[in-house]
Amino acid sequence: MQTIKVKASKEYDVIIGQGVLSLLGKKIKELFGDVKVCIVSDDTVASLYSEKAKKYLGEENIKNELFVFPHGEKSKSPEVLFELLEFLASKHFSRKDVVIALGGGVTGDLTGLGAAMYMRGMHLVQIPTTLLAMVDSSVGGKTAVNLKSGKNLAGVFNQPELVLCDLQMLLTLSSEIFSEGVAEIIKYGVIADRALFELVKNGELVENIENVVARCVSIKSEIVSEDEFDTGKRNLLNFGHTLAHSIEKMSEFKISHGNAVAMGMLLISEIAWKRCLSKERCQDEIIDALLENNLPVSCPFTNSSLYYATENDKKSSSGRISIIVPEEIGNCKILNIALAEFKELLEL
Amino acid sequence: MQTIKVKASKEYDVIIGQGVLSLLGKKIKELFGDVKVCIVSDDTVASLYSEKAKKYLGEENIKNELFVFPHGEKSKSPEVLFELLEFLASKHFSRKDVVIALGGGVTGDLTGLGAAMYMRGMHLVQIPTTLLAMVDSSVGGKTAVNLKSGKNLAGVFNQPELVLCDLQMLLTLSSEIFSEGVAEIIKYGVIADRALFELVKNGELVENIENVVARCVSIKSEIVSEDEFDTGKRNLLNFGHTLAHSIEKMSEFKISHGNAVAMGMLLISEIAWKRCLSKERCQDEIIDALLENNLPVSCPFTNSSLYYATENDKKSSSGRISIIVPEEIGNCKILNIALAEFKELLEL
Repeated sequence: MQTIKVKASKEYDVIIGQGVLSLLGKKIKELFGDVKVCIVSDDTVASLYSEKAKKYLGEENIKNELFVFPHGEKSKSPEVLFELLEFLASKHFSRKDVVIALGGGVTGDLTGLGAAMYMRGMHLVQIPTTLLAMVDSSVGGKTAVNLKSGKNLAGVFNQPELVLCDLQMLLTLSSEIFSEGVAEIIKYGVIADRALFELVKNGELVENIENVVARCVSIKSEIVSEDEFDTGKRNLLNFGHTLAHSIEKMSEFKISHGNAVAMGMLLISEIAWKRCLSKERCQDEIIDALLENNLPVSCPFTNSSLYYATENDKKSSSGRISIIVPEEIGNCKILNIALAEFKELLEL
Repeated sequence: MQTIKVKASKEYDVIIGQGVLSLLGKKIKELFGDVKVCIVSDDTVASLYSEKAKKYLGEENIKNELFVFPHGEKSKSPEVLFELLEFLASKHFSRKDVVIALGGGVTGDLTGLGAAMYMRGMHLVQIPTTLLAMVDSSVGGKTAVNLKSGKNLAGVFNQPELVLCDLQMLLTLSSEIFSEGVAEIIKYGVIADRALFELVKNGELVENIENVVARCVSIKSEIVSEDEFDTGKRNLLNFGHTLAHSIEKMSEFKISHGNAVAMGMLLISEIAWKRCLSKERCQDEIIDALLENNLPVSCPFTNSSLYYATENDKKSSSGRISIIVPEEIGNCKILNIALAEFKELLEL
C-alpha cells in the first residue's frame, strides 16, 4: 500500500493498494466524522462493487444511499447531473455530508461536478474502478458533463478529499478497458519519466502495477500542485490529447479515448520529429510501447481531416492552439501556436 | 463615485455611482485585455439597458454577443443554465473571455453559475440593476439555480472580477422592487450598523443612496472576506432569512423575497426578545423602519405552520438549524440550535 499526498487548493491522500476499499468506512469517519454518504455508480459497477462499499460503510455505522445511472458516456449529461442533485435533495443530504464516486471516468467527472454543485459543495471521495481513472481522472479535480456542442464543456475544478485506488478492481476490467489506462501511463512516461516508459514498453506493467499507478499519480500531483487551474504547465497532461479529441469525434466516439490518445501521441511525435521540434526521434520507441500493450499504431483519418476537426474544436477569439511535443522520452514542451502554423506542421 | 475593494479568493472592485455603466468598455479592456464578451440579461432588462451596454463595449471595439432569457424566478433553472452554456459554445467563447450578468438577482445567480461552469470557468462581471442585487446578491460569489426540491440548491461559489453599480438604473425600478432592496439594507443595519439603520428608519435613504449602497457592500465585503465559503460568520447575512424562506415557500412565492425578509426579521426579533436572547428590545424600531419604507409588519402565517415548513426545509442528518438574533440594533449573534429548541422558541 502506498499513499501519495496531493497538494492542491485542498490537500488529500491518494491511497493505492490491493483491497484498500476495505478502508472506506474508517477513513470517512476519520476525515468527516458523523456524516451520511451517497454512493454514485453506473449500473455495471454498482452490480460489482456497491454492496461491498455499503458493507464497509455499515461496519462503521455510516448511513448511506446509492444513486445508480446507466453506464456509458451518454450519462455524462446535464440530465443525469440534475437527477443526481434532485436525488441528494430528496434524501435530505446536507453540505456536511459525503458523495462517493465509485466507477470510471464518467462516474468521477459527473459525481465530482454534482458534489461541487449540491448546496454549493459537499465532501467528495473518489474510488476509481478503471486503470484510466486511477492514473488520471480521479486525481486533480477536473469535473464535467458534456454539452451538445462538445465534450467536457460544462464543469468546475473540484478536488476530492480522498482517493482510494483498489488494485483488485483492475481484475474485473476487460483487456480493452485496461489498455485505455495503459495509453495514459505511456503518456506519463513520455512527458516525465523515461524509466516508467521503459518498464511499460518492456511489458513489465502488470507485475509492477502498484508502483506504476503510484508513479503516475505522483507525476500528476506535482503538475496539478503547480498549475491546478490549467493555465500553464498542466497542459503537459494533454500530450496526444489535442489530436485524440478530434479522432474520437470524427469516429463518432467509436474509437475509445485510450486508443485515440495512442494515435494522437504517435502522430504528434512523428510531426515533431519531422519539423525538428524534438531533440530525439521518439516515435519508434512509442510504437514499440503501444504494440507491446495492444494499442493501435495507425490512425484511420488523414492529417487534413484531423486539422479541420481540430480547428472547429478550438475555434476561439484567440485562433491559437497549444500542442505538446516530446523533446525526448521523459521530457515534453508546450508550444502555443497559431492555427495557421498548426496547419503547416501537418503539411497542409 | 465610490470604489469598495472585496478581498475574497479573488480581489475585485465594486464601483458605485451615477452613470458608472459608461466605464464598462474601459474597465473590461483594463482587466482582461483583448477579449470577447457575452451579455446575459432577461427580456425586461435587455430592452432597457443592453443597447447601452453594447454601445460602451463598442466604443472600445470589444466584440460582444447578447443572451436573453424570459424574466422571472422560473428562469433560474437547469434548462436556462444549459441553454446559456450551449449558447457560449455555439459562439466559440473561450475560457479567457468574459460573461456579464446584467440584471437583478436571478440574472446574477444564473450567470455567475454559467460563468463558473463554462470550460470550468471564464471571467465574470456583475452589473446589478436592482437595489437588492446591488447591496446583496451581486457581491460575495454565491451563484445558483433552483432544483424542483428547493431554491438555490444547485450552485457554486464564484466571485466576479468587477461589479458596476450604476445608481441611475434604480430610477427604472417599481416601488415594490425598490422596497425589496430596502429590506436587505435594514438587515445590514440590524446586523452591523446602527447609524445605517437609523438613516433608513428616518426616511433618508434616497438622498443618501450612494453612501448607503457603499456601506452595505462594505459590510458584506468584510463578512465575505472572513468567511467566503459560508461555514461561520457569513450566516449573519441570513438574519430574517430562515423564516423568510419558509414564508416565500408557503405563499408559493407570491410574497416577494424582500417582503418575506421584512416579516422574517420582525418575527425573529420578537421571538428573541420574548425568550431573553436580546439585550435590547429591537422590534419596535424595526417596525418603524419597515413602515417608513412601505414594507409589511405582519405575517399571514402562524408560527406553527412556519415551524413545519422550516423543519421540512432544513431536514438534514444533523437536525440542527442556525438562527440569527439581534442582541441590539447593529449587532447580531448566530445560534446553532436543535430543531426541537427552535420549536420551543416558537412556543409550539
